[in-house]
Amino acid sequence: MSADARRYFDLPSPFAMKRGGALTGARLAYETWGRLDADRANAILILTGLSPSAHAAANDEDPSPGWWEDMLGPGKYIDTDRWFVICVNTLGSCKGSTGPASIDPASGSPYRLDFPALTLEDAASAAFALVRGLGIDRLACLLGNSMGGMTALAYLVRHPGSVHSHISISTAPQAQPFAIAIRSLQREAIRLDPNWNEGSYDEERYPEAGMSIARKLGVITYRSAMEWVGRFARIRLESDQREDEPFGVEFQIESYLAGHARRFVRSFDPNCYLYLSRASDWFDLAEYGGSVREGLARIAVERALVIGVETDILFPLTQQQEIADGLQAAGAEVELVALDSPQGHDAFLVDIPRFGAAIAAFLGRM
Amino acid sequence: MSADARRYFDLPSPFAMKRGGALTGARLAYETWGRLDADRANAILILTGLSPSAHAAANDEDPSPGWWEDMLGPGKYIDTDRWFVICVNTLGSCKGSTGPASIDPASGSPYRLDFPALTLEDAASAAFALVRGLGIDRLACLLGNSMGGMTALAYLVRHPGSVHSHISISTAPQAQPFAIAIRSLQREAIRLDPNWNEGSYDEERYPEAGMSIARKLGVITYRSAMEWVGRFARIRLESDQREDEPFGVEFQIESYLAGHARRFVRSFDPNCYLYLSRASDWFDLAEYGGSVREGLARIAVERALVIGVETDILFPLTQQQEIADGLQAAGAEVELVALDSPQGHDAFLVDIPRFGAAIAAFLGRM
Repeated sequence: MSADARRYFDLPSPFAMKRGGALTGARLAYETWGRLDADRANAILILTGLSPSAHAAANDEDPSPGWWEDMLGPGKYIDTDRWFVICVNTLGSCKGSTGPASIDPASGSPYRLDFPALTLEDAASAAFALVRGLGIDRLACLLGNSMGGMTALAYLVRHPGSVHSHISISTAPQAQPFAIAIRSLQREAIRLDPNWNEGSYDEERYPEAGMSIARKLGVITYRSAMEWVGRFARIRLESDQREDEPFGVEFQIESYLAGHARRFVRSFDPNCYLYLSRASDWFDLAEYGGSVREGLARIAVERALVIGVETDILFPLTQQQEIADGLQAAGAEVELVALDSPQGHDAFLVDIPRFGAAIAAFLGRM
Repeated sequence: MSADARRYFDLPSPFAMKRGGALTGARLAYETWGRLDADRANAILILTGLSPSAHAAANDEDPSPGWWEDMLGPGKYIDTDRWFVICVNTLGSCKGSTGPASIDPASGSPYRLDFPALTLEDAASAAFALVRGLGIDRLACLLGNSMGGMTALAYLVRHPGSVHSHISISTAPQAQPFAIAIRSLQREAIRLDPNWNEGSYDEERYPEAGMSIARKLGVITYRSAMEWVGRFARIRLESDQREDEPFGVEFQIESYLAGHARRFVRSFDPNCYLYLSRASDWFDLAEYGGSVREGLARIAVERALVIGVETDILFPLTQQQEIADGLQAAGAEVELVALDSPQGHDAFLVDIPRFGAAIAAFLGRM
């Protein structure tokens, strides 16, 4: 049995969902690093992208590297000698928190498509309940990246006064049509896989092909053309590595994508993917007051750091600018950092030195 | 029976293919506009993208609008009162020219995957044979866009002296990894469709789902995020227009993609798509001399117009710059036009006023 640092927080039951329905006996998985001060004022909450677990970095109970290993830990950019860091597995995921792959207590079987419609506001409410459950009235910092950045905006707009400062990374105040198009196509690839079977798959009949296409399309849009020119160019696989089938893989870039897909396909539940993907499309801060600007105006933080990447085609820099401008207009002291990292949307997972420097400088001034 | 302006040119038989094999009794479909001068010096050849037919514009035999209707005709940007214009359906296509959907004379059945491996050099050789067959020693202008632009580069590098001037539109001197990744994923979507059946589908069992995903992914990468923000934003479909199924379409952008897919899926042969898509990945001008620069150095045209679009993510402006620089270094008088059209790669089909003005000005100086 592998090490496991997850703790579980029981959500209020029933837990009402924004679009109707409620969850009974739902819970969140989370991990923590560092120690909460006596005055409970040194907590940082991290909200993740669509697929990561709560295991952002190694800790005592689970020394395996986390998805943000180089960012987070004693003496690192987010210094857990100073900060008490919480990372939560989003509601609707399959990494310990309740989601479509969890058992529905009403039936004794997995929810599958009986899971109620999920929104990022629900994920934010659940995260807020966890923070309160840990006895924290006000977060020192709420940090969200990608989908987690949207969840963070939902958290902030619905719980004014609950956060001192905010770090927003490569995210959006509302889903734009290009991102919706990509995600819609990812969902379609899964839904069209006969093995998806309206959500009723199992280990034997599993929508592997659909998940593979969805993941590859994700990776294509998470990185950048510029990075790949330098990294893969037109390098071909050795002939013994090529697939022996018509139109099989031939270039390194194709096997790179295949590797990503292979690692993902069985490690993330397809129905959870569909629910979280759609929740991202639905998210729109303009629901709060009629426009994104007005939604941001309802967010009250003292300071904010907004980081974006020029090569990000999924969450373009213009949207980071929109967030920064809106938070500033709302009275926050805002710093916008536009990085020219070649790694596109994924840069926050890869270009740790630059993201880390910006984050450490921001936290250092607190 | 609908009007048909196609003429057919019988290729030399056998027609040897670059990667091996040969075609017997192959032919090209083409259409023409205007009249060839007595000295045969006013011919313009248009090489198309992956899917268009030879019907670029209305003509006497077929008055229906073509795919470049507003560009081409009497008094238009490419003025057929002056120029004799030929548009060829690429070898390997299914719009009249010989391709994988054609009958293999050896078996009496469609070639399907028995069609020999296709390269853009083969398409170029076939087009060259047609031009010679029409009695034209030297083209006044060779114009290629998208895949047709790559085919044009193959034509030029293999037939030096056969073209006076060149118009290169939104294309590439070699396929880059981002474009390869997109096309590989499109091919995978088709191949994974059980109805593809290793190329042996029919009208009843047809890889509709795979073709739909491939086309939608195409449309996503042919346009630009910027255009869609203005055009679709987050507009939702009326509830009676929505699909009554889990995760069905909800946003206008999704139904726009669905409409594109619907119109394409049954009108283009899946095996032809696979062959032409792979041919695009294979194309690499660096095969001629060891580098793209050296390949371009072997091209001898007097003048060239290179047009690209800033929002094109599939054939980025950097590649148009590379073509322009290389042709200039080879001695041509080169004009690079970088347009900020919001329509991305498809701009040459949509932003006719700007593309047309550049083309008309270039042709006007001849």
